[in-house]
Parts: sequence; structure tokens; C-alpha cells
Amino acid sequence: MTDWAALAAEWLRDLAAMSEPGRGVTRLPFTQEHRAALDRLTTRMEEAGLSVRLDAAGTLIGRLDGPEGAPTLLMGSHQDSVREGGAFDGITGVVLPVLALRRLREEGVELPFAVEVLSFADEEGVRFPTALIGPRALADTFDPGVLEMEDGDGITLRAALEGFGLEPDAIAGLKPDPAGILGYLETHIEQGPVLEEACEALGVVTAISGIERHQLTLTGETGHAGTLPMELRRDALVGAAQIVGEVNRLARASPDLRGTVGALSVAPNVVNAVPGVVRMSIELRSPDDALRERAGVALQSFAHEVAAAHGLSCEITRSYHQPAQPCDPALSQQLTEAVRATGGRGLTLPSGATHDASAMADLCPIAMLFVRCHKGLSHVPEEYAQPKDLARAIEALCSFLASARV
Amino acid sequence: MTDWAALAAEWLRDLAAMSEPGRGVTRLPFTQEHRAALDRLTTRMEEAGLSVRLDAAGTLIGRLDGPEGAPTLLMGSHQDSVREGGAFDGITGVVLPVLALRRLREEGVELPFAVEVLSFADEEGVRFPTALIGPRALADTFDPGVLEMEDGDGITLRAALEGFGLEPDAIAGLKPDPAGILGYLETHIEQGPVLEEACEALGVVTAISGIERHQLTLTGETGHAGTLPMELRRDALVGAAQIVGEVNRLARASPDLRGTVGALSVAPNVVNAVPGVVRMSIELRSPDDALRERAGVALQSFAHEVAAAHGLSCEITRSYHQPAQPCDPALSQQLTEAVRATGGRGLTLPSGATHDASAMADLCPIAMLFVRCHKGLSHVPEEYAQPKDLARAIEALCSFLASARV
Repeated sequence: MTDWAALAAEWLRDLAAMSEPGRGVTRLPFTQEHRAALDRLTTRMEEAGLSVRLDAAGTLIGRLDGPEGAPTLLMGSHQDSVREGGAFDGITGVVLPVLALRRLREEGVELPFAVEVLSFADEEGVRFPTALIGPRALADTFDPGVLEMEDGDGITLRAALEGFGLEPDAIAGLKPDPAGILGYLETHIEQGPVLEEACEALGVVTAISGIERHQLTLTGETGHAGTLPMELRRDALVGAAQIVGEVNRLARASPDLRGTVGALSVAPNVVNAVPGVVRMSIELRSPDDALRERAGVALQSFAHEVAAAHGLSCEITRSYHQPAQPCDPALSQQLTEAVRATGGRGLTLPSGATHDASAMADLCPIAMLFVRCHKGLSHVPEEYAQPKDLARAIEALCSFLASARV
Repeated sequence: MTDWAALAAEWLRDLAAMSEPGRGVTRLPFTQEHRAALDRLTTRMEEAGLSVRLDAAGTLIGRLDGPEGAPTLLMGSHQDSVREGGAFDGITGVVLPVLALRRLREEGVELPFAVEVLSFADEEGVRFPTALIGPRALADTFDPGVLEMEDGDGITLRAALEGFGLEPDAIAGLKPDPAGILGYLETHIEQGPVLEEACEALGVVTAISGIERHQLTLTGETGHAGTLPMELRRDALVGAAQIVGEVNRLARASPDLRGTVGALSVAPNVVNAVPGVVRMSIELRSPDDALRERAGVALQSFAHEVAAAHGLSCEITRSYHQPAQPCDPALSQQLTEAVRATGGRGLTLPSGATHDASAMADLCPIAMLFVRCHKGLSHVPEEYAQPKDLARAIEALCSFLASARV
């Protein structure tokens, strides 16, 4: 009998070696490391009975045919890593579905639909200043203008695709007929500590959180820390500190909101000078767009009030925003039942990070299965998911596939 | 009749030209610019009837003899500037006493004591990592070890003194008999906005504030701003913000305390990462040492409480401290009466900055006269005191000298 835990761990360890030299895993898109990973995945997929092809966006597709005219369920994630990243982010969501299909085949289960396992080329956006090429191509939201973007060596995305044997101009025709697609199920390590804290191997994602970022500049007046009386000060850091506190308070007041001041710098930043200028970021994330938008508006108002109270000027702009992508309730419900069938509680949680599923949502219903990872660590060599949790995910995927109501 | 306002402004403008090229005034000790200033001051002093000498620490001394066996009143400040500093800091306290003595001479006033006007070489500590050489030499608190300290070009203080024609080993014998010294009166621009806010040309210093500095490191744990739930965070910046607020609150709660977080840095300092480490400074200043010490202890306790509440570790060390130097009540009272004789209110205030008087306090009673300056600006080319305020200071110094009870 196959030891699925050991096999999943072995496959991931093997793929982790397909990396640039150095710490952890560095596997960027359209490189020799990418090619090596595709060759190995092709072999694994073919061994599992899948027919394999590479589409024009560099997405490796392993297909298990279903009955004549049956729709297709898409599964997958990305093959690429950040620089000096880990062996689990992305690639786990390619390996586990292949293992699940292999297991169903060994058990003689035939599915009433086709399945395609997708290994997207580039989700991390490390090589080019763009990302999600594969899922955007399938959803027909790919902007051909990005083909002219260059990597750090001046190589355009177009040249990189062509050098990989692909035809960039064929990307425009990749979108499948949505009527034939059941949905997209992505398996991914959580990259956070919620499942570990809850002692659960698996969780089902409710939504991929929306994000907004604000850039603030508070300007007061610097002065000598000895000679400037407190009552005449316009201390930019004293104002900034109140805003840091309010971002934290507001986010903690709502279970669906995360608020972070991640970057903050002080000028002139010397021990005996009153801070004259503080620049800072505020990032808000929530699966609930309305909640996030209200928080953003409230924090902008708060910043202006604080500035007025301290005699500061305040420039604040919302520099970035991206709406939430809710997961499909029906698919997610079936996934939750599949997790419960493995003995899990079927815990649900939002995804704070963006995934290929964010872009696939423009094509079809999406669902996501999260796998517990050690201390929530990700994008570092220490990134780790236990073999037994990988096996639980395979079991849940098998249960989902075998019982899916189509 | 002499226009003392115009004359003071003219002398300061003339001395400001004795500077390295560039913005504002750059006149470092034991340089050709220092020599040029001493030559001009020597002429001015001699014109005012003073006999001039240079002591072994580079202090130019202009002496007006008194009656046989009479004690000596010391007046003065420093000749040096910071880099790209202003035309008033320090040098005003040399120029105005010379003008006051010249005025008394023109008016035929004879004093019942001797007066020496001192132009110290180095108060700012810009060239060497030490300062206050001149007053420390007079107070016999000069550490000969600092003679081996080097400037940025590898020139020792000893070599710089020798190159200036001085005998460093004679510094040890400079201290005068304190019994023959009435006190030390320093005139200085305020370097703060208190007099300007109060619409007063002159103020009398109650004490030179003591200083303490603390270095804090708060260490939590970084993490992804999207995937790390609020309740599992150990955000170092959220803790630091509370400490910034408490420093400000505590200092504002006491009129004699100034508290500043001037330097603060965040790691990793990126928009989508929870801050893992914050390093920050706290500086406290007060004319009241006990008050300052209590505040320092209270803030250390507060920092540890905040750290515990947020799951942070907290390292905090008091890295520097210097006690307050109270001004002499009797001298200060006479100075206040002199200010009132010019039509001023005789406003009193602490000095938040350190001065030559801080070191002279180890030799004799000290007093300080502050002159209003524009917006409290100092150590910048825009540093400015109005000619009419300079004239008021000369008038107050004359009144003080003419009525001094010895």
C-alpha cells in the first residue's frame, strides 16, 4: 500500500532541488530550473495517467479525460518560488492533485468529469514586474502590453516565452469556454499560523482578502529637543504614533480586518531633534470589501484629525487597492465536507495573501484548500508542511473529487 | 552717540565672514578661521581698553583691570560654530560683553572689580570628539587623555593645539584661585522660541537642564501582513507607538520636563510585513534632576509593561546622563534686575541646551542671559537675532556691571 505522506514529501524534496544554487529554493519562470521542474512534473503526471501539454503562457496542463462531453474541473497552483524561498509555496498545489488522481486511479475510482492539473509559470512576480500570466491567460484578462516588460537582465517577457519554446501571440486564444469548466480548486500552504494554532491540518478558504494601501506623510517642524518647549512642538512622530495605535485598535475590533503599519521613517531621525517629518504606510486586508473600505475612510479621517490636533500637515493617498475574491459557496461547502470526511473540523478562514485563484475567479468559480504549515513561515527556506498533513490533503482532495456533485 | 545695535550687528557680520567656504558659518577650533576671528577680537578688545592674552587651551582673554586686589568677574562664550551654522551661537556672548565694556568706558563708568571676557575655542565638539576644553581647563576638570583624540584627518588635539602655538602641558596649571572669581556670566541666543513667544528680548536662565538618554530595542516577530491574524501578532511598532505617546504625555504633564523620541527605526520596514524590531531613543531634559530621574525610571517601567502586554522583548539602557547645573540665585537676581532696568519683564527660563557655563559651574557661580532669536532657529545659516535685541542685551550687561554687588 502506498505511503502517500512519504511520497508527497519525496516529490516535493525532489522538486526543491530544481533551484538556482544558494539557500532554499529559487525557481524563476522560463529558466532551466523551470524546465527541469516541468520535465519532472510531466513524468509524474503521465505516470498518474494524465495527458500533458504546455500552453502558450507556460502553464503545464495534465489532463485526465472524463466521459464524452463532460465538463472539466481545474486544479493547480504555481511552480515558481521567490528568491531563497521554500519547497512548499505553490508547488504543493501541483503535486497534491497529481497524487490524488494517482490514488483514485489505484483505487479504481472513475470520475464523471474531466480534471486538469495546472502548473502555472509565474505567480510570485519576482522575475518580471508582473505576475499571474497563466491564470490571466485562461481568464482572458492578460494584458499583451506586459509582454514588453523586462527582467533585471533586460530580457522581455516576450523573449523569455519564445526562448522557452512558446508562442506569446497565442496567449490571446487560450481562454476555454466557461460553460465547460466546473471550477478551479487550488491547494496551498496557509502561509499563516491559524491552522497550527487551531491544531487542524486543513482549512477551507472563504475568500481571498482584498487589499488597500495608504501612504502618509505627516509634516510638523523639527527643533532642538532641549530648547523647544513641549507646548510649542509640532512633533510628527507623536502624531504618527497615535495613527499606528488606531490602525491596530480598529483592526482588532473586527475579526475580518487586518491592519498594519509596516513601514515608518522619521526625519531628521537623531536623538536630540524633534521629528519634523514622518512617512508611513498603512495596509488593510479583509475578505469583506465594504468593511475594508469603511476602515480606510475612517483611518484617513483619523489621520487628518490627529494632524490638526498636533499642528501637522497630513498628506494621505490610497496608493493601491484590489477587491476581495469570494470563494464559491457550493464548491467550498463540498470541500468542507471532504475535509470533515478526513476527520478534520472543516475550519474556514480567509486568505490574507493573493493566489492564482484570484485571477482564475475571472474565469470560473474558485475554491481553496489550505494546508497547515510550520509557524506560518513562508517565502523562507524554513517553510515546512508535515508529510502527514500533505497526506490529509490528498485524502481530502480524493474525497472531494469522488463525491463532487456536478 | 554710538548706535550699539548697528555696531553689534556689524561686528557679528564681520566675524561671520571668518568661515570655511559654503553656506552659513563654519569656524572650527585651531584653524585659520579661528585665528582670523581671534585677531579681530583682539583688536576689538584692545580698542575697548582690555589687555589681551591667549591661554594654553586656546581661550582668548580680554582683561579690564579693577582696583588693586579686587576680584574678577568672568564673562564670555565660545568662538566656534557647527558646520554650516549661524552667525550668533556662541560668538554673540563674546561680542556683547566687549561692547558693554566699551560703552561703560565711553560713559566713564569705573567698576569696583576686574572683568575678563573669555572667547573659548571649542564648545560645539564638531572637530574633536570632545568639547568644552577652555572652561574645563579653567575649572581643572580637563582630562589630559583627550589630548590624544584625533579629528577626522587624524590630527590629535595635542598636535592641533601645538600647531596653533599653544602648550598643551600648560593646561593643567590654568585654574585661577576661585576666591578671586566673582562668577561667570554667559550671554547666548536662546536657541529656542520661548522669548519670541513671550515677546521679550531678554531672559534669565534658572538652570542648565540635565540630560538623560535611553536606547530601546523592542523585539517581536515579523510576519506577513495578510496572513498573520491580529490576535497572534507581536508587532514591535505597536508597542513602540505607545511608548512615544507616553514620553510625550509625561513631559507635557510637567512644565519642567522635556521628553523626545527623536530617532526611531523599524525592521524589516516594508509595507506588507508586521514590524519585528523597533529601535528608538528617548531623551529627557529638565533643570530638576530628581524630576528627570523619576521620569526616566517611570518610562523604563512603562516600556517593560508595554513589551509584556504585546509579547515583545525589551532591552532598554540609559546610555548617557548629565546632571543639571543650577544658576547662582544671587547673580541671577542681579541679572534679572538689570533686565528689568532695560524695560524687560525679567522672564526666567531653563536652558535646554548645554553651554560653556555648564563646565564653568565647577569653578565658580554662573549666570546666563538669553537673547531672543528668530523662531528659535540655531545651528543653521538662518540663525538670527535682531540688532535691537542685541542692543538691549548690551544695555542689560552694562546695568548688571554698573550695579553689581560684590
